[in-house]
Amino acid sequence: MDSLHCPAARFSITCSYSREHKLRIGVGRFNRIVTAKMHGRILITADKSSRRMVPAASMAEVDSSTKTRIRQNIPTEKQLVDRFRQGMIVEGGVGYRQTVVIRSYEVGADKTATLESLLNFLQETALNHVWVSGLLGDGFGATHGMVRNNLIWVVTRMQLQVDKYPIWGEVVEVDTWVGASGKNGMRRDWLIRSHVTGQVFARATSTWVMMNQQTRRLSKMPEEVRAEISPWFIEKNAIQETPETIKKLDNTAKYINSQLKPKRTDLDMNHHVNNVKYVNWMLETIPEIFLEGYQLFNITLEYRKECGSSDTVQALCQPDEDGAQGVNGKIHIEQPQASEIGDAPSSESPLSFTHLLQITGDSKTEEIVRGRTTWKRKPKAIH
Amino acid sequence: MDSLHCPAARFSITCSYSREHKLRIGVGRFNRIVTAKMHGRILITADKSSRRMVPAASMAEVDSSTKTRIRQNIPTEKQLVDRFRQGMIVEGGVGYRQTVVIRSYEVGADKTATLESLLNFLQETALNHVWVSGLLGDGFGATHGMVRNNLIWVVTRMQLQVDKYPIWGEVVEVDTWVGASGKNGMRRDWLIRSHVTGQVFARATSTWVMMNQQTRRLSKMPEEVRAEISPWFIEKNAIQETPETIKKLDNTAKYINSQLKPKRTDLDMNHHVNNVKYVNWMLETIPEIFLEGYQLFNITLEYRKECGSSDTVQALCQPDEDGAQGVNGKIHIEQPQASEIGDAPSSESPLSFTHLLQITGDSKTEEIVRGRTTWKRKPKAIH
Repeated sequence: MDSLHCPAARFSITCSYSREHKLRIGVGRFNRIVTAKMHGRILITADKSSRRMVPAASMAEVDSSTKTRIRQNIPTEKQLVDRFRQGMIVEGGVGYRQTVVIRSYEVGADKTATLESLLNFLQETALNHVWVSGLLGDGFGATHGMVRNNLIWVVTRMQLQVDKYPIWGEVVEVDTWVGASGKNGMRRDWLIRSHVTGQVFARATSTWVMMNQQTRRLSKMPEEVRAEISPWFIEKNAIQETPETIKKLDNTAKYINSQLKPKRTDLDMNHHVNNVKYVNWMLETIPEIFLEGYQLFNITLEYRKECGSSDTVQALCQPDEDGAQGVNGKIHIEQPQASEIGDAPSSESPLSFTHLLQITGDSKTEEIVRGRTTWKRKPKAIH
Repeated sequence: MDSLHCPAARFSITCSYSREHKLRIGVGRFNRIVTAKMHGRILITADKSSRRMVPAASMAEVDSSTKTRIRQNIPTEKQLVDRFRQGMIVEGGVGYRQTVVIRSYEVGADKTATLESLLNFLQETALNHVWVSGLLGDGFGATHGMVRNNLIWVVTRMQLQVDKYPIWGEVVEVDTWVGASGKNGMRRDWLIRSHVTGQVFARATSTWVMMNQQTRRLSKMPEEVRAEISPWFIEKNAIQETPETIKKLDNTAKYINSQLKPKRTDLDMNHHVNNVKYVNWMLETIPEIFLEGYQLFNITLEYRKECGSSDTVQALCQPDEDGAQGVNGKIHIEQPQASEIGDAPSSESPLSFTHLLQITGDSKTEEIVRGRTTWKRKPKAIH
């Protein structure tokens, strides 16, 4: 594994994962909590102060000695069912399934779940999977063995494919499971299905590596951690990945939004821009007329570096130019006709865009995340 | 009741409720769906095309004749329990309680539920209350009798008081119930409590009036609607209201953010800015240094007009100038010291701000919402 550097970053955690496999992580605002991110949100926290398990009546109680409120009742043994989270262990004892009702505020203008909601469901079920497994040390999914070894997870890749967006009030099941990724990595997959029919609405996969929170080095998976998590690994892929390197855009990209500044409400608990904001920034570069007629079918994200509250971000976007996807470098966007909009995927080739978010500084730019999105025509509006 | 006017607003619903009790509502993008809003989000929809009840296996199925997907399985009789939504009827058969786990993406930088999440819970439980009551015609909470009379709800006032923000993973119960408000209005209240201890975390109340979606006039409550909903009314107040008129700010306000433009993801299904965005715009006018040390204790909103996707908005904010809340018209914001930050409310007077969001046009400005916020010092950070 390559070395990791720790610049003095007092109020921010910065995490980059370059092609050369270098990882850099600064020091978090809360100095007892060092955290990696899950596709831009916080992912794994190893909180050294909280190694002890504190069984208590409440999930969150006031610790009278310190006046701080902490998460409690973290299971120390595998739970088969979590009635509050409507979760259960499936897949022969290693997978996790959670029933979720699409809430009124989780849908967009067309009454179907937003991409943001789907990404949130992925994060939530991943964390709840670790919660019910009995392996959770504390925080964002680090196991007891990881906490002992000062290890945290870092996400490097995320892919989500949406065949159909569930509608308001629909009951869906989110299944998630993990598997090996190479020798020292982990793959986490998800399926989102109709609770009633079992129809698959969405599939997702992600790749994770482990790093030492103190040395900032990528780490091999220690045997005690392997012993904890490998019994949960299964060989099952939600998406058959087609390894594809996302090309880096430059300032010749067709659509560019500059001077993007995170707002207070865009930040997560590490005071970093969360993933949903990343995706929103990416998609806001696409012309409105296109977004009205098309819906996202696939998004692939390659994470490079975290974005902090004081960063200024530039979003670049380039439509594919080949074949049906563009004409002479200019994407051909037609206002969809009512008769053309069906519920089934269109037979025409989907349209694709390449994306880049980068931090723009005085002297240099730094990549945050590269992305690829593929789109298909929207089904008819829901009445 | 005063008259209502319907300006030709092809792509937007505009709804104003002035002091003179005039309501104006334009025509929605989807011309079969006319909708009022619940504190800025969509509130009540009367969809004339969907009066029929369609029992079906799924909450959302493809109607093969039209290729549209619609909400189905809407209960036609009162349900005592909704296992998917983790809801149940309480309060002697007229109140609704829903158990909610605070999810990982519903918390902010301090690991406690965001104001946005709490406001979302209020909307969701209100709609689910109507859902389980068996009274839901379709859409956003209109009863069968309201649909027959082309009536929709319009929210005029909303108040939320937060004693304690629940933390990530905490299990809370949201109770909601309705009561009479004057002769023709309705009050809806909420309590958010710890599932384990019963401790009240937050209280909220709101006021609603009924209007005819076609004539755009405020309406008396028809007897058939009164017969439907009055059996659900109880005399119980979550907050003892202290009627207070929020003064209108002008351009002499201390903090002003201008040229605010809604983004695509800020819009709800009526292509209007949703309430959470309103609140965010309001709070973003407050200096960052203040927001770091204080948390919102009370917010009161008086709704005047909806904000559409093409509007340009100005947010005005004025700190209170009297007593402990300010010095010579300038709010005195100190960086809170660690020793001063406790979990209990501070004994010092809370700080207050007055807010106004208005649409700025070429010739005139139009009020969207007036607000008042009160703040207290934050408890210590959660580890």
